Amino acid sequence: MVIMAGGIGSRFWPMSTAEYPKQFIDVMGVGKSLLQLTVERFLPICPIHHFWIVTSEKYVGLVKRQLPDFPETHILLESEARNTAPCIAYACWKIKKQSPDANIVVTPSDAFVLDTVEFRRIIDEALNFTDCHQAIVTVGIKPSRPETGYGYICASDADNLSPIVKVESFKEKPDLETAQEYLDAGNFYWNAGIFVWNMETILMALRTYTPNLASIMDEISADFYTAEEAATVKRLFPTCEKISIDYAVMEKSKDIYTIPADFGWSDLGTWGALHGLLPKDEQQNAVVGRQIRLYDCKNCIVHVNDTRKVVLNGLDGYIVSECDGKLLICRLREEQRIKEFSGD
Amino acid sequence: MVIMAGGIGSRFWPMSTAEYPKQFIDVMGVGKSLLQLTVERFLPICPIHHFWIVTSEKYVGLVKRQLPDFPETHILLESEARNTAPCIAYACWKIKKQSPDANIVVTPSDAFVLDTVEFRRIIDEALNFTDCHQAIVTVGIKPSRPETGYGYICASDADNLSPIVKVESFKEKPDLETAQEYLDAGNFYWNAGIFVWNMETILMALRTYTPNLASIMDEISADFYTAEEAATVKRLFPTCEKISIDYAVMEKSKDIYTIPADFGWSDLGTWGALHGLLPKDEQQNAVVGRQIRLYDCKNCIVHVNDTRKVVLNGLDGYIVSECDGKLLICRLREEQRIKEFSGD
Repeated sequence: MVIMAGGIGSRFWPMSTAEYPKQFIDVMGVGKSLLQLTVERFLPICPIHHFWIVTSEKYVGLVKRQLPDFPETHILLESEARNTAPCIAYACWKIKKQSPDANIVVTPSDAFVLDTVEFRRIIDEALNFTDCHQAIVTVGIKPSRPETGYGYICASDADNLSPIVKVESFKEKPDLETAQEYLDAGNFYWNAGIFVWNMETILMALRTYTPNLASIMDEISADFYTAEEAATVKRLFPTCEKISIDYAVMEKSKDIYTIPADFGWSDLGTWGALHGLLPKDEQQNAVVGRQIRLYDCKNCIVHVNDTRKVVLNGLDGYIVSECDGKLLICRLREEQRIKEFSGD
Repeated sequence: MVIMAGGIGSRFWPMSTAEYPKQFIDVMGVGKSLLQLTVERFLPICPIHHFWIVTSEKYVGLVKRQLPDFPETHILLESEARNTAPCIAYACWKIKKQSPDANIVVTPSDAFVLDTVEFRRIIDEALNFTDCHQAIVTVGIKPSRPETGYGYICASDADNLSPIVKVESFKEKPDLETAQEYLDAGNFYWNAGIFVWNMETILMALRTYTPNLASIMDEISADFYTAEEAATVKRLFPTCEKISIDYAVMEKSKDIYTIPADFGWSDLGTWGALHGLLPKDEQQNAVVGRQIRLYDCKNCIVHVNDTRKVVLNGLDGYIVSECDGKLLICRLREEQRIKEFSGD
């Protein structure tokens, strides 16, 4: 189990900031952060001493505070953000030294899953497959709408004998028309960024498609589990090329499979996605926070701390979020401008 | 100088609350509370050891914190709010014991005056008048619009020889049509609640029109400036009838005068009034707070602490106020509902 927890979630300002990003926030108002929910989701699949969290130095305090029982030596620190490929490589090389035959799941820490039982079934199925196949398996979410905000996986026609099917290609975020075609076609899935593979497969893939990254990892790994590890990582990790695992491996490798899944997934990538997922009142308002009163409001999403007392009147289609001294009131339909609004 | 500072300013929630009402707030964003501005406004007229502040027990800490140089023995405590007549009587009886010939100004602490030089000229003029006349003088603000939120003073036709004219009658808050008639008539003024009189006049008036209140004050005053004062006030002040000075004296006395004044006054009684008074940007937004960014907003009033970072997008005609963990977003045209919104 490798959990990637280094992202900065800038689209959810001010709820999520570079100092306190989305994965550490109780986005859903359930009393647990997305990271805590992610760990909880995987606990029935894998004992905690096989979990690894890769995050940045600035978030290590947050990880420890939110997961006090998590083994500290299993928190890996990226000394600089280099996107997902170096992050995954670091974890895999580290695990290899202790468990060269490991079967591995890699997951983001900031997505949401509704049906955790079905989730477990899917991950178990994928692990069973990679246990005996040299295959990279990516979880493919059955699309429920022509979403233009996600990348798509184009799968070969399923033979209905195996739950796991070959990937034909990966597709970038489509326009609405194309997204509708994907939805109608039936063999397209959302790329959730959840990967399953065995050690030999991922090492081979990284050595083949990112030889520079692999050789940096070979060099770092000489010091793994020694007193020099931190210094060596700090020195060499920033020399890795910034590259995503999708671009580095997925789009190049021939042996990619997908396991179609339907467990109520959202990457929670936008306020609109969160609004869609949260329970709503009759006027389609979704609120997180315990002291919120709405008068003549509709289609709003409100996210504030439980200690905040909020009174809203006469708003239609707005985001209202207050966090740590920062307040945002923004039209939902203009949420793509939040990055501009929040900048300095 | 008697400054009444016991009000609770409930119409400005959440900026103003019963715990921290309007007179203690930097409503105008100038770095000083309305109380501090009021004291400052009167300092050129009268030395500070002739100032008296009447407030409630719960605000005495706020008064001391905001006016650290104010003589503590000149802060009079209403043990219960009894409206303005008992408040004024308490101060006058207390002053009488030391200065039986005092010439007195009574003022609210939560109004705003733009032209403090003209203000001083008006008050000096009124004091000169009451120095040699047994007259109650109330400051009459020349109306600039058919305001329906204020009471009006109907003055007799001025003879243009004296700046001070006889009051014919007081008028309750009018409807718009009546307010327009008042404005057109030219001899109607807004009642600012600022009164000037000499000791003999106000004592006589209170003894005549509120004999019960006067006799309670006679009883309390036996203990003024003794160790028993606090206990006696605490015991007897709550027995005073709740009554305003306007109703108790102004509307009954025959010898009321007004001094027409034009010094840029506002009672800051509503968010709309504050919006009208504050400097505005080209889109008619008025903001108090140093870290506020507006995108596509117009006709808004924003009032938050300087430490708050606020981003607003796409609001037209809203109040946005955040204070002490409480946030209000409300249509300006629905501000009369704030009391309903903020209640428990």
